[in-house]
Amino acid sequence: MRQSQLFTKTRKEAPKDEVSKNAQLLIRAGYIHKEMAGVYSFLPLGLRVMEKITGIIREEMNVVGGQELSLTALQDKSLWEKTDRWDDAKVDNWFKTKLKNGTEVGLGMTHEEPLTAIMAEYVSSYRDLPIAAYQFQTKFRNETRAKSGIMRGREFLMKDMYTFSKDEKEHAAYYAKIHDAYIKIFKRLGIGDTTHATFAAGGIFSKYSEEFQTESEAGEDLIYVDPKSGKALNKEVLTDEVLADLGLSRADLVEKKSIEVGNIFNLGTKFSEPLGLTYLNEKGEKQPVIMGCYGLGPSRAMGTIVEVLSDENGIVWPKSVAPFAIHLVVLHDKEGKDGTVGKAAEELYSDLTKQGYEVLFDDRELRPGEKFADSDLIGIPLRIVVSEKNLAEGKLELKHRASGKVEKITEAELSAVLAK
Amino acid sequence: MRQSQLFTKTRKEAPKDEVSKNAQLLIRAGYIHKEMAGVYSFLPLGLRVMEKITGIIREEMNVVGGQELSLTALQDKSLWEKTDRWDDAKVDNWFKTKLKNGTEVGLGMTHEEPLTAIMAEYVSSYRDLPIAAYQFQTKFRNETRAKSGIMRGREFLMKDMYTFSKDEKEHAAYYAKIHDAYIKIFKRLGIGDTTHATFAAGGIFSKYSEEFQTESEAGEDLIYVDPKSGKALNKEVLTDEVLADLGLSRADLVEKKSIEVGNIFNLGTKFSEPLGLTYLNEKGEKQPVIMGCYGLGPSRAMGTIVEVLSDENGIVWPKSVAPFAIHLVVLHDKEGKDGTVGKAAEELYSDLTKQGYEVLFDDRELRPGEKFADSDLIGIPLRIVVSEKNLAEGKLELKHRASGKVEKITEAELSAVLAK
Repeated sequence: MRQSQLFTKTRKEAPKDEVSKNAQLLIRAGYIHKEMAGVYSFLPLGLRVMEKITGIIREEMNVVGGQELSLTALQDKSLWEKTDRWDDAKVDNWFKTKLKNGTEVGLGMTHEEPLTAIMAEYVSSYRDLPIAAYQFQTKFRNETRAKSGIMRGREFLMKDMYTFSKDEKEHAAYYAKIHDAYIKIFKRLGIGDTTHATFAAGGIFSKYSEEFQTESEAGEDLIYVDPKSGKALNKEVLTDEVLADLGLSRADLVEKKSIEVGNIFNLGTKFSEPLGLTYLNEKGEKQPVIMGCYGLGPSRAMGTIVEVLSDENGIVWPKSVAPFAIHLVVLHDKEGKDGTVGKAAEELYSDLTKQGYEVLFDDRELRPGEKFADSDLIGIPLRIVVSEKNLAEGKLELKHRASGKVEKITEAELSAVLAK
Repeated sequence: MRQSQLFTKTRKEAPKDEVSKNAQLLIRAGYIHKEMAGVYSFLPLGLRVMEKITGIIREEMNVVGGQELSLTALQDKSLWEKTDRWDDAKVDNWFKTKLKNGTEVGLGMTHEEPLTAIMAEYVSSYRDLPIAAYQFQTKFRNETRAKSGIMRGREFLMKDMYTFSKDEKEHAAYYAKIHDAYIKIFKRLGIGDTTHATFAAGGIFSKYSEEFQTESEAGEDLIYVDPKSGKALNKEVLTDEVLADLGLSRADLVEKKSIEVGNIFNLGTKFSEPLGLTYLNEKGEKQPVIMGCYGLGPSRAMGTIVEVLSDENGIVWPKSVAPFAIHLVVLHDKEGKDGTVGKAAEELYSDLTKQGYEVLFDDRELRPGEKFADSDLIGIPLRIVVSEKNLAEGKLELKHRASGKVEKITEAELSAVLAK
């Protein structure tokens, strides 16, 4: 895409009321727009990143047999009353509104209830199980404060998967597969090294739940990591009893601030029982379905990547989620767009695009310093500069955004670099 | 995908309160689930169709230079007050809710206001124009009645594009490009022949708006088509003056009931003026931006396709939007899945999938009649039956869902049919 055509521009300053680093950088670089606290629109660059992230998650969810669907935002009160989660005193972050006839409806902040009700219409026998179903869907949570940019939104995108199993054994097997898929996802998102599968409070159906926590000073959580075993636990379960349970010693633990980028809950029969999701087992006996819930917020993941990997000059995207693979920057000669340099850059843009690379082509007539600053801020992994000086040497200048390494290479050598 | 793995099943009856044909068929075939009147979840088959439809629309929007983004559902009251569209007395289908601090927010039923406000931050010169930006986004409209299935939802998916031009000439040129894109889209969706670009009431900024109306008895609109010229007009503008204006004679017109599947509005400066979206022209003079709005609802399009193309046995998808290209149905012999027929079907499933075809493989152990009825209801364009009888003849049975034509062909001949 030609940067001259992209309607967004970078800006020097983020809005004054924006305190989070992720939103400040993403707004300045033109990825997102702040509608109100905790509510962000995704502009063309931001949507591209979001689609890379959801693409990775979708692939891994499909590998484990997940069936994608799309539930609704508007929620039927009667379903949530059955599980006692309608009352604002019980669930304190509902947004609610009313139909014309006065009927109260909610805006979904999670989707156990409606999906359980759907499954109750389709599941009848043990032969129908296990099932894993997931969606990417906008959630609404009426947060009292929303100061963490796209990491904690009042409106945000969520991938939520739910599994439905006939017994604990079948559930445990599915859980293990999805746990492994989560590990792969965070690796592919470029935050695998600093993301820990973490023991956390379990609720009433299992001793622990599992959180995936990424080390970051911007995090709202505190975790304790045992460097030797790689085990981690949330501060909320740091007791002598739990340490003994996990075979950990307090002295070995390292404290880290962290961001919860994913979580898994054993739901047991908490939803299947009140909502009538049962099946007949091999003996013809009616049994409640065992459920699990697996959350991963693509917008929170995007914010986390920015928090963790950016530097003083701007964003640093991993190749896997970058909006473009290459930022091609031309420094025009005196003849401008129609000069030798302009034409060489046009040709390279055309070649790279034909080869299937996603290229943002900075064809704007601006000073080199402005173009380079924009490029660093936007954070595309590879920057190629076509200039009079480089052309005279028969070379292209290639900068690796993450390492800062700059090299001069021929166009022939470029292919090898891009293939990596 | 194996049908034995798909969690949805067909059903004999739609919910009793469902009166629309599109929702009845889509629910019975397992494409959608009714959450409440006008609010439908999209199950795996339904989401596949929706993604085919949005894929086609996205391609054509990109061809005309549209930049995709994603705005929010939650809407800031102050923006809408500037255009006098906040008051329920002015706009009667708002859903509204409140933040914890009591601030009232709305759920977007359209997005002129927020996008105009965003553009005001990025547009400064005539050089920045024209811009076309679009999104696929969930809209919320508090309809008093919602009885048309997925054709008129309280919550529904919408593609809305907006153009920003420096003057009427630039606007007219962009409008013409998008008009042509719409014609292509409806053709690709399989409803081109019965969809008419229709003159309709224009609002305050132009004499007419343009509606794309698909002939259907399920429609809420009444249009008049001149078969000779191909021109059509909505009943709301059927006056002698308009007929003279369009060069039409009342006697030539044929009345049709129709569904509005798309529309284009000339917005002029209705939004740019109150929201401060201006640019400096070549002379350095400040001018308001001229806007256009281009709507097309993928869920309404999906409902329309079902209304228009289905028959007494079920849905008939055009190839372009079908959830799968091929419905492969095996009629097992006495040995069941491990018999000769079962193995031959498995092999064909594997071959077709490797060749990149999207195949729904009905590997369930059910009676032939049930399988055929399900296949007709689900409506995949090509049905291939592998059975003992067909295998003995060295043939496959191929049924074209739309025409009902059945032919016996060899596996070698199948490739030619599929390539069409």
